[in-house]
Order: sequence, then structure tokens, then C-alpha cells
Amino acid sequence: MSCMVFEDSHTLDTRGSGDIIDITEMVRESVEASGVGDGICLVFVGGSTAALTTMEYEPGLVEDMRRALNDIAPEDREYEHNERWHDGNGHSHIRAALIGPSLALPVVNGRLPLGTWQQIVLMEMDNRPRHREITVHITGVE
Amino acid sequence: MSCMVFEDSHTLDTRGSGDIIDITEMVRESVEASGVGDGICLVFVGGSTAALTTMEYEPGLVEDMRRALNDIAPEDREYEHNERWHDGNGHSHIRAALIGPSLALPVVNGRLPLGTWQQIVLMEMDNRPRHREITVHITGVE
Amino acid sequence: MSCMVFEDSHTLDTRGSGDIIDITEMVRESVEASGVGDGICLVFVGGSTAALTTMEYEPGLVEDMRRALNDIAPEDREYEHNERWHDGNGHSHIRAALIGPSLALPVVNGRLPLGTWQQIVLMEMDNRPRHREITVHITGVE
Repeated sequence: MSCMVFEDSHTLDTRGSGDIIDITEMVRESVEASGVGDGICLVFVGGSTAALTTMEYEPGLVEDMRRALNDIAPEDREYEHNERWHDGNGHSHIRAALIGPSLALPVVNGRLPLGTWQQIVLMEMDNRPRHREITVHITGVE
Repeated sequence: MSCMVFEDSHTLDTRGSGDIIDITEMVRESVEASGVGDGICLVFVGGSTAALTTMEYEPGLVEDMRRALNDIAPEDREYEHNERWHDGNGHSHIRAALIGPSLALPVVNGRLPLGTWQQIVLMEMDNRPRHREITVHITGVE
Repeated sequence: MSCMVFEDSHTLDTRGSGDIIDITEMVRESVEASGVGDGICLVFVGGSTAALTTMEYEPGLVEDMRRALNDIAPEDREYEHNERWHDGNGHSHIRAALIGPSLALPVVNGRLPLGTWQQIVLMEMDNRPRHREITVHITGVE
């Protein structure tokens, strides 16, 4: 079969630490534009203080996630990274590395088989607003 | 080269919170059925309270993993999610989002190059038995 | 379009627990050798006590990451795994499973769109030096 490769890139501005943004629609539009029927959709964010995963996107859980991330790598403790660079975002780097910068999803019959309460989210971990570029790469067959 | 795309889906019933299931054989069968010699195998579970990763599948470690997940997001604390939805699975969502719903593995000479003590596992995080659908997508060349 | 598949494998020797190694150059060389212009690069490490992710590779943060991993799964507590196997690496398995054995990245115009301070790292979690094999699989079009 003939191989299709489609690449899209989206930009968005975050509000800094703890900003969790639902990017499902953005990714879905790329999948539709690709024309791929069966394949892989790879979502990626450049940078070492942001991460991608899926979760139910509702305000209570977003709040719970912020607390969980702060339990795992608290903002208010000492980091060697901060001693050296004085940008105060040591915790941001740890959190982002644990979750990871990419998310691979299957494309089935032209659609992402996400659960009803499963959204694709960008997690801004940095301690200041950032301009983020999201790469959506879709490969497969018609 | 001609591109091959193969898609398989498996269902399984979990026993609820802390159920960790070895799905290596299930995924291996899909890889063999695909006929792909060199490529990518993407395993995915739909829903926001289950996750996929690899680990040594032995009873002691499965027990250790349950404890570790409970240390990271304890079941017996308050979650905003539970205040709103009263389904008591706030901890399940946090754990699943941290580990993630997909796992991408290479296919080399028609096989997954897993270590001897490295199994593919589905982690049920939800607080009740669930019916799960696992998508196995394999793409590559003969 | 014609589908390209390229597979490379690299070996490296780690120094044991807490060794975090920058493998960005190694992966970049594979991407260049592949000739793929647009596609997916999948990096994978076999075994259940090592993991892959991206982070800013600077000594302060590497130290912070070691501490964070020890906070999440402390070396000096009891593990059922250790009771059974007496190899003392229960914590290694937990840490590796949480982060995961693979990393998928897009290839855009023949390059990995990593941030300036975003490196690909192998995290050795085991409590002894290990010989690791890294598979780099690149698929896409010219």
C-alpha cells in the first residue's frame, strides 16, 4: 500500500505553571486533514518544561493533577538546577521529564479511539507563560 | 518499499484497582499475525483510568507497584474530582495520566526486542472491574 | 509515496544506579543515516530497569532527578521483589516502569525538533553497571 505522511504544527500560549490545556480538538483536526484512515498519530511538544498525556478534562481533576504534580516535585524545595541557573524552575523540569514530551495514538477508521472522558492535554510545567509549538505527525494508509 | 499496516483489537475484563495484567502474549500474537518484519508496534488502551508500560511480571513486584502507585496518588485522600462526581476514583485518573495510555515498541526481524524479564502490562487503575479494549497497531515493511 | 524503514542499534555501558546518559547525538546520527525527511523516530531500551525520556542535561538537574526518583521509589525501603530475588533492585523496577522504555519523536525536515535545552536521556535505574542496547527505529518518507 502507498504510505501517507502528514505533518501539522500548532502554536499556543500558556499561562505558566499548572496550566493544563485540552488540545484534543486541535489534534483531531490534524487527523482529519491528513486523510489517513489507519495509522499512527504522534503528538510532540518541544522543550524540557512541558509534557503531553491524556486525562479526563474536568476542573476538579485538573486541580487534583496540579496538587499531585506538586507532591511529586514540590516547587518550594531546593533544586541544584535553581542554584546554578536561578530561574526557579527545577521542579518544572522534573515533572516534565517524568511524564514525557510525546504521545503516540492509533488512528482507526480515520479517528482517534479515545474514551469519552479521555482528552489529550498539554501540561505547562514552567513557572512562567510560554509559547509552545505542538507537532502532530500522522502516518499510515488511506 | 511497500508499507504494511495491521490493526488488531483485543478485549479483556479487569478486576479493578491494582489489577496488573501481563498482555505480552496478546501483543506478540498480533505482531506475528501482521507479517511485519521491521516496524513499529503501538499498543493503546482507551479510557482515562488505565495505563500501559513494561515491567518484570512477578508477584512481588506487582505488589510493590501497587504500593508505589498508592504512595504517588493515595486512594484515601480528598480529590476535587470525587467531590464533583462521587465515583471515588480521583486517584485512578491521576495514576493513569502519569503513566500514559500508550506504548510504542520497535519490531525487529518480526519480533519485539523485549528483555527476558520485561513484560507488557495493562494497569487497571479504576476502583471497579472494567471491560477494556486494547488496540495493537503494527506498521512497517516485510 | 515510498515508505522508508531504517533500524540502528547502539550499545553502551552504564555505571549503575542514577547514571543518566545523554544519547541525543547517538540518536541524531541514526536519523541522519536513515535519510528520512519526514517520519517517526522510535528509541527503545530493552530490559526492565532502564528508561528513556527527555530533559535538560545539566549536572544540577541530573542530581535533582536522582533525588526525585529516590523520593518516588526509595532504595532503602522494603520491596517484595527483594524478598524473593535478593538482588536489591525493587526500586529500580518501579522507577523504570513509571517512566517507560521507549520514546517516540517526530522527524521534521530530516531533524528532531527538540528544544535547545532538551536532550534525549537513558536513565539507568539498576543498582549495578549494565550493558544496554538501544534500538533506534526511523520510518517515514524522503
